[in-house]
Amino acid sequence: MTERFSEFRDLARSLRVDAVALVPGPNLARLVRHEFHTSERPLVLVIPIEGAPAAVVPNLELGSWEPLGIEGEVFDWRDQTGYTAAFDALARHLPLRSIAVEGQVMRVFVSDALRAAYGGLEIHDHEAAISGLRICKTREEVAALEQAVEISETALRETLDTVRVGDTETRIETRLLGALFAAGAEGLAFSPIVAAGDNSARPHAHARPDYAIRPGDALLLDFGARAGGMTSDMTRTVFVGEPSAEARDVYETVLAANRAGHAAAKPGVTAHDIDDAVTSILEASPYADRIRTKTGHGLGRDVHEAPYIMRGNHVPLDIGTVFTNEPGLYKLGAFGVRIEDDILVTKDGSRSLTTFPTELMVI
Amino acid sequence: MTERFSEFRDLARSLRVDAVALVPGPNLARLVRHEFHTSERPLVLVIPIEGAPAAVVPNLELGSWEPLGIEGEVFDWRDQTGYTAAFDALARHLPLRSIAVEGQVMRVFVSDALRAAYGGLEIHDHEAAISGLRICKTREEVAALEQAVEISETALRETLDTVRVGDTETRIETRLLGALFAAGAEGLAFSPIVAAGDNSARPHAHARPDYAIRPGDALLLDFGARAGGMTSDMTRTVFVGEPSAEARDVYETVLAANRAGHAAAKPGVTAHDIDDAVTSILEASPYADRIRTKTGHGLGRDVHEAPYIMRGNHVPLDIGTVFTNEPGLYKLGAFGVRIEDDILVTKDGSRSLTTFPTELMVI
Repeated sequence: MTERFSEFRDLARSLRVDAVALVPGPNLARLVRHEFHTSERPLVLVIPIEGAPAAVVPNLELGSWEPLGIEGEVFDWRDQTGYTAAFDALARHLPLRSIAVEGQVMRVFVSDALRAAYGGLEIHDHEAAISGLRICKTREEVAALEQAVEISETALRETLDTVRVGDTETRIETRLLGALFAAGAEGLAFSPIVAAGDNSARPHAHARPDYAIRPGDALLLDFGARAGGMTSDMTRTVFVGEPSAEARDVYETVLAANRAGHAAAKPGVTAHDIDDAVTSILEASPYADRIRTKTGHGLGRDVHEAPYIMRGNHVPLDIGTVFTNEPGLYKLGAFGVRIEDDILVTKDGSRSLTTFPTELMVI
Repeated sequence: MTERFSEFRDLARSLRVDAVALVPGPNLARLVRHEFHTSERPLVLVIPIEGAPAAVVPNLELGSWEPLGIEGEVFDWRDQTGYTAAFDALARHLPLRSIAVEGQVMRVFVSDALRAAYGGLEIHDHEAAISGLRICKTREEVAALEQAVEISETALRETLDTVRVGDTETRIETRLLGALFAAGAEGLAFSPIVAAGDNSARPHAHARPDYAIRPGDALLLDFGARAGGMTSDMTRTVFVGEPSAEARDVYETVLAANRAGHAAAKPGVTAHDIDDAVTSILEASPYADRIRTKTGHGLGRDVHEAPYIMRGNHVPLDIGTVFTNEPGLYKLGAFGVRIEDDILVTKDGSRSLTTFPTELMVI
């Protein structure tokens, strides 16, 4: 734990702030190895450049906090009396002028509580720097990712075995969800997308109870599991009956882009380079007007995290980075194809944690 | 839609701000009838006191935004170029000096983006006032809540039918999750709590794979389903084999408190009154030192929302309010009992949406 605190201390020094503040979410979970809930009850851990950390913790969570053995003062508060006094006590105990926060995790009421307790506190959003500490996964984290991937692949195999013409998206989704939990998912990475026919062209499609799958339909499944604090994220697009020649060609185009993304991934290559390798293939195809998204995003405790795999992001990838490689082509009103794998950057190049076949599948 | 905007306009006037800003979450979902994801991509709808609303929307979400028919300008942005220009365009189009936001929903990076685009903008956290518009449920919302409750009760019945001595919490949790989705859940209200024996005394217990249920153990299940945009939340504590005399007495105490909460609920009664009626029974028992939580919370699109049912909250309950009535007693290291129903305040009193029996059950 002390070693992990030092990572945040070093970060605060390099950011020229007095402390880093963490709230429930992936960065805190990684540090303290417990997933606190995001709720109406503020919980903040403040790690100053020097000296012990200090925390504001809801009394209700003390039973979870104390066994974690986190050094430093804890200021707890109860629903009946509110949290103002706890933040005031924190401010008296640990004077600060400036603080780095996770701007995509901390909500306004928590930053307001800090600001009210610390007159004149400078609060800086250093989301990228703080979450950047999570980019390179430990061996233990990679093992959990592999477990999450395996659970999702097992669930996909079982689900696809049951799909027939006439099936509905919602029925398939229900079977997929059941299969995920039966395979050992501790939770969902996100609410799955199960979309057939024209619905497969919508990026965040909702499953429809009233659309019966027709022969030749594309069926896109985008989903993931949680295991050991980590998430998986995979997409496969299959065809229920023989696809059209156009659909076959689109599929092969997306698959070529997916393979180019995997081939490009190695230490030192940038997120820009990977998106460029992938998107160039899509752009060179007859389907360039069907591109809707960047290539992917980092994956770990959060299903969307750094590094974002897009042109313009010139951060080089390090060993241990895990990202999604998910090119797609979407013809609105007709069909979409996306093929998504989770890629681990290794010493020698990269390895796809996702091993489910990517070749065109007709079921 | 226009009528619903007027609710926010009136609110902005009464709060003496120029506009209300909504981000993805329950308030926006209720207004636009679509659940946008909370993600790294900012999306904001700004409703000014006068004139049309305006929005910043990720380009990726335009396909979902446009069919909603929301009046007013939309400033979209793409991952490749970032969102700064869209916020700047919003600020030029819709000048504002002060704005009310949902402080428990909006994250710091979004308030920073607003602040950067609008030099000197006053951002006020009016979470309570904005979310307060959701407290009284419409007929349609109550119907969705009833559906969510029914799904969870079906799942509980099916799960309890399979529980035996020697079972583990994780196996029971897996069956519960499968049953929830099979019964029609569109998602989970939250990650379920399935806790036996000493684990049942922990407020946010995680299911253990390595604890085999022993004869006489308490088994606490706290979970809920999502349906039609609404959530259910229920807890039952059953005994796997004959409980001890102490456990029986504790159970009857909690049940009496639960019944008192239901009996107290009617229009005009305050959240304080209900918590007081419930907690007084627990305090008068021999188990007063086992009280850990307030009586409950509002329930709707969010599984935790206003009104919070606790002493000191002197807001009177209106017809259409739905809240959880969930007294509990927790003996750390031994066992806990919680009985939780979802209560709807009606013209004549109240009605429990949860109908699963509350009498002590030995399985």
